[in-house]
Amino acid sequence: MSAKQKPSRKSTEKTAADGMVAEVLEGNTRAIAKMMSRAEAGFGESHTAMAEIYRHAGNAHVIGITGVPGSGKSTLVCALAQAFRASGRRVGIIAVDPSSLFSGGAILGDCVRMGDLATDDGTFVRSMATCGALGGLARASLDTVDILDAAGFDVVMVETVGIGQDEVDIAEAAHTIVVVSAPGLGDEVQAIKAGVLEIADIHVVSKADKSDAQETASNLQSMLALGLSGKNRFGWQVVVLLSSAQKGDGIAELAASIDKHFQHLQDTGELSLRRRRILETRIVKTVEDTVRSRITADCEQQLDALLDRAETRDIGPQEAAQQLIQNLKI
Amino acid sequence: MSAKQKPSRKSTEKTAADGMVAEVLEGNTRAIAKMMSRAEAGFGESHTAMAEIYRHAGNAHVIGITGVPGSGKSTLVCALAQAFRASGRRVGIIAVDPSSLFSGGAILGDCVRMGDLATDDGTFVRSMATCGALGGLARASLDTVDILDAAGFDVVMVETVGIGQDEVDIAEAAHTIVVVSAPGLGDEVQAIKAGVLEIADIHVVSKADKSDAQETASNLQSMLALGLSGKNRFGWQVVVLLSSAQKGDGIAELAASIDKHFQHLQDTGELSLRRRRILETRIVKTVEDTVRSRITADCEQQLDALLDRAETRDIGPQEAAQQLIQNLKI
Repeated sequence: MSAKQKPSRKSTEKTAADGMVAEVLEGNTRAIAKMMSRAEAGFGESHTAMAEIYRHAGNAHVIGITGVPGSGKSTLVCALAQAFRASGRRVGIIAVDPSSLFSGGAILGDCVRMGDLATDDGTFVRSMATCGALGGLARASLDTVDILDAAGFDVVMVETVGIGQDEVDIAEAAHTIVVVSAPGLGDEVQAIKAGVLEIADIHVVSKADKSDAQETASNLQSMLALGLSGKNRFGWQVVVLLSSAQKGDGIAELAASIDKHFQHLQDTGELSLRRRRILETRIVKTVEDTVRSRITADCEQQLDALLDRAETRDIGPQEAAQQLIQNLKI
Repeated sequence: MSAKQKPSRKSTEKTAADGMVAEVLEGNTRAIAKMMSRAEAGFGESHTAMAEIYRHAGNAHVIGITGVPGSGKSTLVCALAQAFRASGRRVGIIAVDPSSLFSGGAILGDCVRMGDLATDDGTFVRSMATCGALGGLARASLDTVDILDAAGFDVVMVETVGIGQDEVDIAEAAHTIVVVSAPGLGDEVQAIKAGVLEIADIHVVSKADKSDAQETASNLQSMLALGLSGKNRFGWQVVVLLSSAQKGDGIAELAASIDKHFQHLQDTGELSLRRRRILETRIVKTVEDTVRSRITADCEQQLDALLDRAETRDIGPQEAAQQLIQNLKI
């Protein structure tokens, strides 16, 4: 946004940022998309806009939807979005899963960010690409949730693949965590969900019309009966639901269960604990992201010199890291 | 290792560490496993042992094997290990994939680290669990490669799932990168490989006895013909091979291709560039890991106070992160 485009407004960065924040808070789609691009880029040194966004966030119900590739997460997210829209709520969707229908699967290896696919005024979809080496995805995703929250979306769904440390961290940074399992995906694929199953508040077995859906549901029930979920500290009973997104079966029940969970969080006071934990994750991820970008921005020469020394095995990577940390201009 | 257990040895930490390093360098299996556990735990403040390990590393050929769950990576790694053993080489295997045969798939959600499965004196297998929140996996995995390298293993294979930012970073931190694709895994699952296909030096289509294996290989060839791999700067022609690990078909060809690639790296000087890039990844990951552990170790009180302020939206996560960074005792 330059002074030329809006001659009536001063072009100082602060004013431009303030203007954009105001537009985000009004729910302006273009401003939201722009702010998200800034979040992905890391905001440079100016965090004033994001701080302002944060001040206005905190009203949305953030739902993490996770599961292995092919489990039918995106189809489920679509169906849920329709259900929430039908009850008059505005719905934001963030797809962090490269195999998501929303991101279209950047199948040729290109780092494609699909544009924002706004189906109606009350829905906003954003795909986060796993672009660029060495991180920032989790921090950017969590900032993006905040932007939708501040923009007045009542529900923000974050779809992530249930594999990979960053991706699971993102899924966990939600108020309600839905883990999607598909029947008959095979042991090898299901095994990868180790560590993901236990973060579920709600389990959904998708593709319920398949013959082995009930068996998958029973397996999940048995697992819960064995007490392998640590979620019931506040008395929430983890549920296992069946759904067929394409037929629309089970979607209303799932939406109701998600709402019930949010109500439970509010009633028991668990919500504030979860908010605090999510905030901690965000802060830690932001620290990491900041440190990482400082290394490349401020310490390139020093990194080169340290690499020279480490190459000849004069120092190890640990000592190089220590020296780098000492000299970070923070 | 306490003074009581080994009364002839001084129990100062330095001496114990030196002793363990010497044992690692001799290839002592128990010492290697212990050192790996230390690497996973982050070594605390003492990096002397790891620095010593690093000084003795740099001889192994590090091979990254990656692909989606169910692509048959572990079976292939097993077959390759046998092929390398047959040529007299000592083989280390690190499985970072929770669905790996080696880790056994911690399917009940337990954070299980399978013990070391030493099948013969010349083979060492270690599973790295995706345990604990908020990271350290990449740093620990790369340290573990170094330990096997210093312990005299000629070949170190690192198996990771080709999804998740950390996991792909780990796969990329190898001299030779093998990407495994299974025929008929379905578009949804294959789509997730976006960004992974392009890091391959060698493509393998596993389960070559399946009817659609040839088609998958042709698709990969077409992709390469389109110039979508950026790997040929040094003239290496990315190859597509077919294998059937269970029948043993194509394994010798794959092993030969891996060796040929290493020779190519040495002949063209690309090896030193790759080593430097891997080193850079290690240093950056170590910095991140150090900063993260300092936050929890040194800044717990401060983090709590910042969380209090952020909860009331007095400050945002960005400002909290900045303040935390300023006060890190680094």
